[in-house]
Amino acid sequence: MVDTSATIADVTVTPVAFRDPPLLNTVGVHEPYALRTVVEVTTDGGVSGIGETYGGTLHLERLRRAAAELVGMDVWSLHDLIARTTRALGTDTPGGDGMSGMVTGSSTVDRVMSPFDVACLDIQGKLVGRPVSDLLGGAVRPAVPYSAYLFYKWAAHPGQEDDDWGAALDPAGLVEQARRMIDEYGFSSVKLKGGVFPPDEEIAAIRALREAFPGLPLRLDPNAAWSVETSLRVARELDGVLQYLEDPTEGVEGMAAVAGGTPTPLATNMCVVSFDDLAPAVERKAVGIVLSDHHFWGGLRRCGQLSAIADTFGLGLSMHSNSHLGISLAAMTHLAAATPRLTYACDTHWPWKRPDEDVVDTTPLRFTEGSVAVPTAPGLGVELDRDALARLHRQYLDCGLRDRDDTGYMRRFEPSFPTETPRW
Amino acid sequence: MVDTSATIADVTVTPVAFRDPPLLNTVGVHEPYALRTVVEVTTDGGVSGIGETYGGTLHLERLRRAAAELVGMDVWSLHDLIARTTRALGTDTPGGDGMSGMVTGSSTVDRVMSPFDVACLDIQGKLVGRPVSDLLGGAVRPAVPYSAYLFYKWAAHPGQEDDDWGAALDPAGLVEQARRMIDEYGFSSVKLKGGVFPPDEEIAAIRALREAFPGLPLRLDPNAAWSVETSLRVARELDGVLQYLEDPTEGVEGMAAVAGGTPTPLATNMCVVSFDDLAPAVERKAVGIVLSDHHFWGGLRRCGQLSAIADTFGLGLSMHSNSHLGISLAAMTHLAAATPRLTYACDTHWPWKRPDEDVVDTTPLRFTEGSVAVPTAPGLGVELDRDALARLHRQYLDCGLRDRDDTGYMRRFEPSFPTETPRW
Repeated sequence: MVDTSATIADVTVTPVAFRDPPLLNTVGVHEPYALRTVVEVTTDGGVSGIGETYGGTLHLERLRRAAAELVGMDVWSLHDLIARTTRALGTDTPGGDGMSGMVTGSSTVDRVMSPFDVACLDIQGKLVGRPVSDLLGGAVRPAVPYSAYLFYKWAAHPGQEDDDWGAALDPAGLVEQARRMIDEYGFSSVKLKGGVFPPDEEIAAIRALREAFPGLPLRLDPNAAWSVETSLRVARELDGVLQYLEDPTEGVEGMAAVAGGTPTPLATNMCVVSFDDLAPAVERKAVGIVLSDHHFWGGLRRCGQLSAIADTFGLGLSMHSNSHLGISLAAMTHLAAATPRLTYACDTHWPWKRPDEDVVDTTPLRFTEGSVAVPTAPGLGVELDRDALARLHRQYLDCGLRDRDDTGYMRRFEPSFPTETPRW
Repeated sequence: MVDTSATIADVTVTPVAFRDPPLLNTVGVHEPYALRTVVEVTTDGGVSGIGETYGGTLHLERLRRAAAELVGMDVWSLHDLIARTTRALGTDTPGGDGMSGMVTGSSTVDRVMSPFDVACLDIQGKLVGRPVSDLLGGAVRPAVPYSAYLFYKWAAHPGQEDDDWGAALDPAGLVEQARRMIDEYGFSSVKLKGGVFPPDEEIAAIRALREAFPGLPLRLDPNAAWSVETSLRVARELDGVLQYLEDPTEGVEGMAAVAGGTPTPLATNMCVVSFDDLAPAVERKAVGIVLSDHHFWGGLRRCGQLSAIADTFGLGLSMHSNSHLGISLAAMTHLAAATPRLTYACDTHWPWKRPDEDVVDTTPLRFTEGSVAVPTAPGLGVELDRDALARLHRQYLDCGLRDRDDTGYMRRFEPSFPTETPRW
C-alpha cells in the first residue's frame, strides 16, 4: 500500500495560440491562429497533471472561476469535480464554447470541467504508475486509428505567402491533399469537411476520392449546411459510397427526417452534444453514430458514460476533433483506446498543426500507419514543455485574437459571405 | 510513482451457506440456508481482493470457468475482464442466476464477471491506498442509508424451534417486525416484500405501517404477482401512500400499462435487469426507477454506467438486494456512496442474517441511524476471515442445498402451492 492521497494545491490556466492554415467550412474560414487553453493542476505533494481545451474569452473566464474553486479538491473525485465546477459557474448561461457556433448546445459544466478531468486523471496515473487508459478500464487496442481530415482551403491566409499545403478548392486539389496526408501519416480513412461549395461539387469531390482511394472509408461533414431535401438528395447520390454522413442538416427533427430516408448512417457532433440531447435523439431515431469528444462531453470519464449509453441504445461511436495540441491528442488516444464501442477511426486536425508548435514534447505521439500508439508511461504520457508554453502564450498575447470567428474573418475578404441556414 | 502493476496469479471460488429464516415471497419461502459464492483473486505480487455472488450450481460452475480464464489478467482492465468472461462462457445459454426465477433475463456475462470486478477493485484500492468508492468517482455521501426490508414470515422453519423474530403473517406482525428492525438499526425507510397474501391484506399491511410510522417512506414489492388490473387497483388504493411500487406486474408491456394509469412511481428489478432491457423500457415508459444491483449488472463499474444511463434518460435509481454477506454489503455501500443518482435508501437483507455468520469481520459495517458509513480503508475495507470461510463452506457441504428453490421448499409443506402468474 502506498500513499496516493492528492489534494489540489494549485491550478494554472494559460491561453495559447498556434498557427492555423486557412481551412474552409460552412461558416467561414479558420483564422491565422487557433486558440486553446492549457490547464495545469498541481497537488499538495507536487505532482502535476495537464489538460487542454478551447481558448475563447468566455470559456477562459469560466475556466479561471472553476480553477479557483478546485483548490482543496481530491483528484480522485469525479463527483466533486462536477459539484465544484457547477458551483463555480453558478447561474452562468450556456454558450461561449469557442467552437464558432457549430456546437451550441453542449453543457457548460461538462465543457468547463473537461480539461480538469484530464489533468486529474494524468495525476492519478502518475500517482499509481499507470497510463490513463488503464484508469478508464484498460486499452482494448494498442494503437488508435485516426482519419485523414481533408479541408477545402486557400493557398494562404490573405496577405501571406502560400503555405506548405497549397490550395484545395476542387476535387483534384482534395485528392492531392488526401494523397499527401495518407503518404505522410498512413491514414486509412478519409473525412472531408464539406458545406463549403454547392452540394454537387462536394459529391464530385467524394467521387474523385472514391476513385483515387478505392478501399478507403469516406465521410462527408457539411456541418448542417443542407436542407432535409438536399440532404436526402446527396445521400441518395452517394448511397453506398460513404461510411457515414455527418450532420447533413440541422436539429434532431431534420436529422430524423434524413435518417428515415436513407440507408447511409448519419453521424453527429451538432444535434447531440450533451447528455440532455440523447433521449430526444434516441426517441426520434435521429442519428446512428454519435461523435464523442471529451472536450464537450465532460472529460474522459464522462465519455466512458457516453460509450455505455451508445452501447445500450445501439448507437455507433466515433470521435470529433477541433484544432488541438498534443495534450488533447494524448487524451483522445487514451480515451479511444479504452472505448471498445469506438469502432471508427477518430477525427484529428493534427496534420494541420505545425510540428514545431506545441506545449508538450510530441515524440510519444508519432503516427504509424494512420494510428497513434497508446502511450504507456504513467498518466497521459506527455509532459508540459514550459518554455514552449510560454512561447505559445506570448503568441496568444501578440496575435490579438481572443475568440474564434471564422465568419468575421471570411467577411473581411468576402463581405457578402452568406450565413443563412440551410445554405443549400 | 509507485509500482501498482498487478497480474492475476490465482483465483479461488468457494461456495458457502449461511442460515436464513423462513421469509415468504410470491414463489415460496426461503430455505434454511442461503447460498453464496466467495471469490478471492490474488495477484502475482501477493495482493488479494474479494467478491461475493450467488451460489447456485450452474452459476458456480460458470464462475469456476471464468476464474480459470482470468489468470494472467491485469486487475486494472475492466474491458479484459468482460472479454475473458465472455470467452470463458462461450455459447453458454442464459438462466441459472440462483435467484429463484425472479430475475431471469439478466446478462450471464454481467452476472458472472461481477464478483471478479469487485475483487479487482478491492485489489486496485489496496494497491493505491484508496477506498473503492474513490475508484468509482468518489463518495458523495459519508454514509449510505438502507431500508428496513420487511417480510411475511413463519415463526420457524418447519420442525425447528421458533426463531428470534417469530411469525409475521398479518399487519400487526409486520408492524412489530418493523418496529424492532427500526429500533435496532435506525432505518428511516421501509420496504415490504409482498405478493404473499391477497392484495387487500397487503394493502391493509401498508396502511398499518403508514399509521405506525407516519413519516417513513414505504415501498411494496409483490414480485409481479398481480395482473395489470389488480396492480392498477392496488396503486389507486395506495395512491399517495407509497414512495414507489416495485414490480407489481410482469414484463415491460404490463408495467407500461400500470405506469400509464397511476401517479405512483414504478420501480423494477424484474423487467429491467440488463443493459439490453433498458431501451425497450425507456421507449415504453414502463418504469420510473431501476433497482441497481451490482451482482447482476456486471459489477461496480458497470453499475456506474447504469447510473449514467438513468441520469440521461430521467430514471430514478434505487438498489436491490438478495440475502448476502458482508463482502456484498461493503461493495453495495461503496457503490451507493459513489452514485449521486441513487437517491433512495438501498434494500438489504442484512438484518435477516445472523451476526455470527459471515466470511469477513463485519465491524466496519455497523449501522447507525439506518446507514452504513462508507469504509475508508483501502479497497473494500473488509478482510476475509479464512476460518469463517472454511466454516461456512463446510456448512455448504453439509446442508445439502445446491440451488435456491423457494417453491420446492414451500411445496413440501403446502403441496398445492400455486405458481400461476399472475396470481391475483
